[in-house]
Amino acid sequence: MKAIETPDPVTRTRLTNRYDTVRQFTEHLCRPLATEDYVVQPIEDVSPPKWHLGHTTWFFEQVLLETFAKNYVRYHDTFYYIFNSYYQHFGDRAQRDRRGTLSRPTVEQVYAYRKEIDNRMHELIATVDDAQFEEMTELVELGLHHEQQHQELLVTDVKYIFATNPLLPVYTEHSLPNAGNSSSATFVRFSGGVKQIGAEPDGFTYDCEHPRHSTFVRDFAIMNRLVTCGEYLEFIHDGGYENHDLWLSNGWDVITARGWKAPLFWVKDGKSWQIITLSGIREIRETEPVCHVSHYEAEAFARWAGKRLPTEAEWEVAAQSVDDGSYAGNFVDEGYYHPAPAGTFEERETLHQMFGDVWEWTSSAFLPYPGYRREHGALGEYNGKFMNDQMVLRGGSCATSRSHIRTTYRNFFQSDRRWQFAGFRLAEDV
Amino acid sequence: MKAIETPDPVTRTRLTNRYDTVRQFTEHLCRPLATEDYVVQPIEDVSPPKWHLGHTTWFFEQVLLETFAKNYVRYHDTFYYIFNSYYQHFGDRAQRDRRGTLSRPTVEQVYAYRKEIDNRMHELIATVDDAQFEEMTELVELGLHHEQQHQELLVTDVKYIFATNPLLPVYTEHSLPNAGNSSSATFVRFSGGVKQIGAEPDGFTYDCEHPRHSTFVRDFAIMNRLVTCGEYLEFIHDGGYENHDLWLSNGWDVITARGWKAPLFWVKDGKSWQIITLSGIREIRETEPVCHVSHYEAEAFARWAGKRLPTEAEWEVAAQSVDDGSYAGNFVDEGYYHPAPAGTFEERETLHQMFGDVWEWTSSAFLPYPGYRREHGALGEYNGKFMNDQMVLRGGSCATSRSHIRTTYRNFFQSDRRWQFAGFRLAEDV
Amino acid sequence: MKAIETPDPVTRTRLTNRYDTVRQFTEHLCRPLATEDYVVQPIEDVSPPKWHLGHTTWFFEQVLLETFAKNYVRYHDTFYYIFNSYYQHFGDRAQRDRRGTLSRPTVEQVYAYRKEIDNRMHELIATVDDAQFEEMTELVELGLHHEQQHQELLVTDVKYIFATNPLLPVYTEHSLPNAGNSSSATFVRFSGGVKQIGAEPDGFTYDCEHPRHSTFVRDFAIMNRLVTCGEYLEFIHDGGYENHDLWLSNGWDVITARGWKAPLFWVKDGKSWQIITLSGIREIRETEPVCHVSHYEAEAFARWAGKRLPTEAEWEVAAQSVDDGSYAGNFVDEGYYHPAPAGTFEERETLHQMFGDVWEWTSSAFLPYPGYRREHGALGEYNGKFMNDQMVLRGGSCATSRSHIRTTYRNFFQSDRRWQFAGFRLAEDV
Amino acid sequence: MKAIETPDPVTRTRLTNRYDTVRQFTEHLCRPLATEDYVVQPIEDVSPPKWHLGHTTWFFEQVLLETFAKNYVRYHDTFYYIFNSYYQHFGDRAQRDRRGTLSRPTVEQVYAYRKEIDNRMHELIATVDDAQFEEMTELVELGLHHEQQHQELLVTDVKYIFATNPLLPVYTEHSLPNAGNSSSATFVRFSGGVKQIGAEPDGFTYDCEHPRHSTFVRDFAIMNRLVTCGEYLEFIHDGGYENHDLWLSNGWDVITARGWKAPLFWVKDGKSWQIITLSGIREIRETEPVCHVSHYEAEAFARWAGKRLPTEAEWEVAAQSVDDGSYAGNFVDEGYYHPAPAGTFEERETLHQMFGDVWEWTSSAFLPYPGYRREHGALGEYNGKFMNDQMVLRGGSCATSRSHIRTTYRNFFQSDRRWQFAGFRLAEDV
Repeated sequence: MKAIETPDPVTRTRLTNRYDTVRQFTEHLCRPLATEDYVVQPIEDVSPPKWHLGHTTWFFEQVLLETFAKNYVRYHDTFYYIFNSYYQHFGDRAQRDRRGTLSRPTVEQVYAYRKEIDNRMHELIATVDDAQFEEMTELVELGLHHEQQHQELLVTDVKYIFATNPLLPVYTEHSLPNAGNSSSATFVRFSGGVKQIGAEPDGFTYDCEHPRHSTFVRDFAIMNRLVTCGEYLEFIHDGGYENHDLWLSNGWDVITARGWKAPLFWVKDGKSWQIITLSGIREIRETEPVCHVSHYEAEAFARWAGKRLPTEAEWEVAAQSVDDGSYAGNFVDEGYYHPAPAGTFEERETLHQMFGDVWEWTSSAFLPYPGYRREHGALGEYNGKFMNDQMVLRGGSCATSRSHIRTTYRNFFQSDRRWQFAGFRLAEDV
Repeated sequence: MKAIETPDPVTRTRLTNRYDTVRQFTEHLCRPLATEDYVVQPIEDVSPPKWHLGHTTWFFEQVLLETFAKNYVRYHDTFYYIFNSYYQHFGDRAQRDRRGTLSRPTVEQVYAYRKEIDNRMHELIATVDDAQFEEMTELVELGLHHEQQHQELLVTDVKYIFATNPLLPVYTEHSLPNAGNSSSATFVRFSGGVKQIGAEPDGFTYDCEHPRHSTFVRDFAIMNRLVTCGEYLEFIHDGGYENHDLWLSNGWDVITARGWKAPLFWVKDGKSWQIITLSGIREIRETEPVCHVSHYEAEAFARWAGKRLPTEAEWEVAAQSVDDGSYAGNFVDEGYYHPAPAGTFEERETLHQMFGDVWEWTSSAFLPYPGYRREHGALGEYNGKFMNDQMVLRGGSCATSRSHIRTTYRNFFQSDRRWQFAGFRLAEDV
Repeated sequence: MKAIETPDPVTRTRLTNRYDTVRQFTEHLCRPLATEDYVVQPIEDVSPPKWHLGHTTWFFEQVLLETFAKNYVRYHDTFYYIFNSYYQHFGDRAQRDRRGTLSRPTVEQVYAYRKEIDNRMHELIATVDDAQFEEMTELVELGLHHEQQHQELLVTDVKYIFATNPLLPVYTEHSLPNAGNSSSATFVRFSGGVKQIGAEPDGFTYDCEHPRHSTFVRDFAIMNRLVTCGEYLEFIHDGGYENHDLWLSNGWDVITARGWKAPLFWVKDGKSWQIITLSGIREIRETEPVCHVSHYEAEAFARWAGKRLPTEAEWEVAAQSVDDGSYAGNFVDEGYYHPAPAGTFEERETLHQMFGDVWEWTSSAFLPYPGYRREHGALGEYNGKFMNDQMVLRGGSCATSRSHIRTTYRNFFQSDRRWQFAGFRLAEDV
Repeated sequence: MKAIETPDPVTRTRLTNRYDTVRQFTEHLCRPLATEDYVVQPIEDVSPPKWHLGHTTWFFEQVLLETFAKNYVRYHDTFYYIFNSYYQHFGDRAQRDRRGTLSRPTVEQVYAYRKEIDNRMHELIATVDDAQFEEMTELVELGLHHEQQHQELLVTDVKYIFATNPLLPVYTEHSLPNAGNSSSATFVRFSGGVKQIGAEPDGFTYDCEHPRHSTFVRDFAIMNRLVTCGEYLEFIHDGGYENHDLWLSNGWDVITARGWKAPLFWVKDGKSWQIITLSGIREIRETEPVCHVSHYEAEAFARWAGKRLPTEAEWEVAAQSVDDGSYAGNFVDEGYYHPAPAGTFEERETLHQMFGDVWEWTSSAFLPYPGYRREHGALGEYNGKFMNDQMVLRGGSCATSRSHIRTTYRNFFQSDRRWQFAGFRLAEDV
């Protein structure tokens, strides 16, 4: 049995500071919103911003305060019901696709809820028994990473809310300059063999990144940067959306049924394409990474190009080669909320844009790693129960916090989803 | 050709005053709302309150200002698109079931739009040529009645928004006292023959009330008051919702598929029933009229009771006998937003509650009267194009303005709709 | 109390003969079918022919044999379940839209079932107590009219099954000659007043035709023949399907969602239109009545033509003027299964095609006549429970038996249904 | 360049014999069917038997005769349209979910089509140029394996058609004896490392089995037999279907929405469970393998049991250890069409039931093997375009032909499908 070390006051202060930093960033992201923007849910995938504010708070109340605070009295029973998301373990909850029908609690009430829970968390961190501090710290860390995930969803959801409003509101005046041409892509070779991927036991990571394990990878080459809008335009002009031979069967059904002819947020304006960004609508820029594409579109593009998507193991092996712990790249911290041409936010020789800009679709299904055991209870609901019919994405995006990303990080979405900042790079056998 | 009389300034002032009265009442009804309450649309039937505010304003801009104001410059093209409802004639419009996805324009912007259009209307009324004044007056009157219809929808929509929110917000603290027992119902006899129903040509009325025409009515008797919650409870307790023999085929399918066991807004609390009102949730009161029932439920109740619903002709013949032009009854003007026991707001000897309290389902389909001609263009879209698969309701409700109701007024909804203040009284052959 | 007369043997023989005639005609209609044709159900409205064969037989077993035969032993419990249609009263039944999923019982087994029930019915008619004979006779008559209704459905369902099969099988080689031009339409005037419509108490009629009653009809004129394909083509060429102003709101939604541009079974072949008939596919003939249109299309055409559809009262008043009891016209007895130009099967001076050819859409909703009381139990399920959201059609079609039609006969379908032989004539105010 | 060897007549005769053997077996499987059974399609997954007969024939016409026969005249253009399945490459085709609506071509016509194409194939095999013979042979082999796949679907589809018919027809009187108890399961250990899986280049195999490649497998143990009905009953009795903690999120949604409480074809009869087999309905036998379960149910059972499903690599490594080329086991050749207790049809020391009985769900998604390249054109539509959102099953079933199975064979279905003969065995880490 592990000895429990007495946490010194510095540790407690450090935790409180980190708690405050993350929590305040959520509210920072909401600053440009009008009250009305907090309320709506144009599609089931998108949650109303005030729901994100409440849900992340509920998480701390549910997982920390209800467990560790003595004689804890719940803030509001109905909030508890409204702000649970998918945790069957915690009982009934409002239906996901009905979140946008709830005008109450008001935005002001949700901020008051946040404030009160923050106070209670401060007190808990300051006063919890030493014996429980370590256990609690790990769960606070989980709650903060959980909140960072919702910060990203907040950005993507606001983008969807604004982009589908005929008035096209602008979220920020701060926008990327129109940078020069992207150089043509090259493929960087990696030699194969038995490789180690997945997370080491120490440090914060999600369960699904474990265990670190051996996997056999063949020799491969991976593109030195992301696929650009310019390259994607060629695919469109070459009839990519009309040629069934390029598509997975499900993908063809989806693009046919929904009439997709381009990435989400691309708007045809006569002969040219416009793109809706969080800084407003403007011309497509060919050097920027293509974004808001589904796995199906990434897959079809790869087939059209005579290449393929990388597996998640290949991606991780490649990422290990450039991972110096700094995670230089275009993250939400930069404040642009839009992917940038290769080289804008990093200086690397070989692989560009591995971190930030856009999540990169891989060819791997989101399945348990060998040796993974799904927890029982609520923690097993965090990632484990979603290991079905979703594809893995890697590397974070311009809506991700830099402090949230890792080389071993596995994101996942269904193949047809496009509202996230998702793009891709290609790979090939050598 | 009719001579155009020069309208004196008094006439113009009177119109402006009436305009202001109606327009301000809409805003009065919104006073209890939080900004968030203006935005949501929990079901397709319900429109967000801010949409009602904008749409009624758009109507004046579209039908009056664009026609009569010189060199008129539209307030905002996108508002025009967003606030059109179903008028194909006026071109593209936002999908009805998507209204609750639009966070913008903000509530503040919508009020600003109202204010500006009111100013422009004031100016138009003051300055339009005498020659056009009469034509315009009729359309202003239409716009005001249109706005009164939306005031009623506003009340019913807010009720739905609040009643389906797990926090059960209260709209008004003002609530009906718990009055004494309703006396048992009697049936008032009317002798049949060829009767005249429908509106006379003069005075404001809707197209669908025309022409006044002969119809043959048999001898009949009609209940002297509305069916009460107490009577409806007997129907429930007698297994009314479980006995297919009582129901129309479509009705049985609806109650089975949706699991209906009671009127909308009735909540079972152990063995007793609670009711959600705009003044909060409380016990059912047996003397109050049953409300928020579908045509199917009214029909099944009537069959269970060995009676039937009245036809709209019977209802109108009966109403003629008590119509002294005062329309005494429980209207939105009373400010209770809830139906009251017979006798609370009127003193009559024979027929109670013919006006106000609840819209009364009849057994008549909403079809054109003999000799009715649907207008071409936008005005034909007002009522005429809905003369299919809807049932007629009569008499107004506690959410209707007294100045909006008439004995000849024909309201109509699909047989399965319950979110309106709709109840019924019975009839029988004699 | 009515004295029961002893039925003489002749009466029993006559009933048996009529029973056999009707029952055999059902099988006659099936003669051109391959075994496979009996099985399929391309849309929910269409039932597999073998289901019609079984269901009509079940009706005699259920309503006659189970009631009147002593110690009756049911033929087969599962057949009972499979061949019930919509009678809640008789308990569980196979879902309507699943009829086409049942390969068993085989066609041969269904014919064996018919044969056995026919034998049992013969025996019942021959041996039932005199006291019960009269009561039974009325129900046999109901069963035979029920079977005639299903004969018509059989023809329309086979037409749908054949017409939607890419191999376009031909049901009969017997086809109408291409007759000369239809003369242009005239409108025949009728003066209004209080009129009597509905069925007299004696003779077989359906409940919904009762009671005969007074109704007030204004002066009107009605077209002397049915609207033709040629006239309907003008409507199409004039953009009738593209002009929302002509349509009811529900109708516009239906034609938009389903992409309707012409009547059902019309196929565009380059610039000309072909029509699929039970005698094969061929050119449209302009003089034939338009058929397989929905109420919405009839209504839109009428509005386009500046006329309207007749009410059912107007239609019946008009029909009374030409009803000599012979019901001359183009019925299923003629064996063409297709409507014919005016004058082909009748010689009348004024009104043509009132009986046979196509069911005529009226502007009346299918509602109870004044004084109608819906029976309790199974008989109340025959017509009464469908008095909601359907429109009345009158006069029978080329798929109806002549012995089944009456001037007072009320048929009814939803406004969007087209697979029946339904057309229309126009009316106007005078 | 490879030299083309002149095929001697023996080779041609051998191919003809193999062709006839496979083709006749399809018709053998249809012998118990009534004509009506060939026609119906109770769910989209199930195709009408006559469609299978036609589609497999179309494949030979399309892929062989149209390519290799000189001046080939197509048998029937509409058959071509009707019997194409999902090949976009070959143009328009009847919608999959509409197959059961087509009564024509009749069963007799489909058999005539088969006969004629068989004759033409015989002639082609006998007369094709030597130069083309080899190329053709490979495609004939593909066509025969394609037909064997459809033979299996035929059995499963007939089972569904019969089992969902309230008359519960029996397909064969031949049924498995009630064998003794299954011994309790043991887990057989395999040591890990870099393993080779996938098909060697020579011999007939599907594209998706290629290329044979290295993969890293950890030490693991796999159950020595299939999970039995008895074991599955324990899972049910332990509340397996009510405990959300055991289920994948999608799985829980599926069982909740569809009300699943047991495998498909299990029928609760009071307290005990009956099972519908192709030999009729009877008691569950505890020693038999559980069958007709979805991937979700297999996964939940494994979690309940504290184990997991094997990956497809683990399954294949284990299967290699017992693969002597004989594929002893319970296949369609045995004629029981139902899985049997371990040991009934094989004598092995370690792993039982690896081949035959039931397809075994693995924990692997159906994805391309490293180095796989999807063909362009029709062949790329065979397997490659389905590599999305499906799970791999291994080992064949009692409805599979022994000559069709291989250790490397990859079958695949969506996680919620149950109408195939699918069960599972467990695995664990060691």
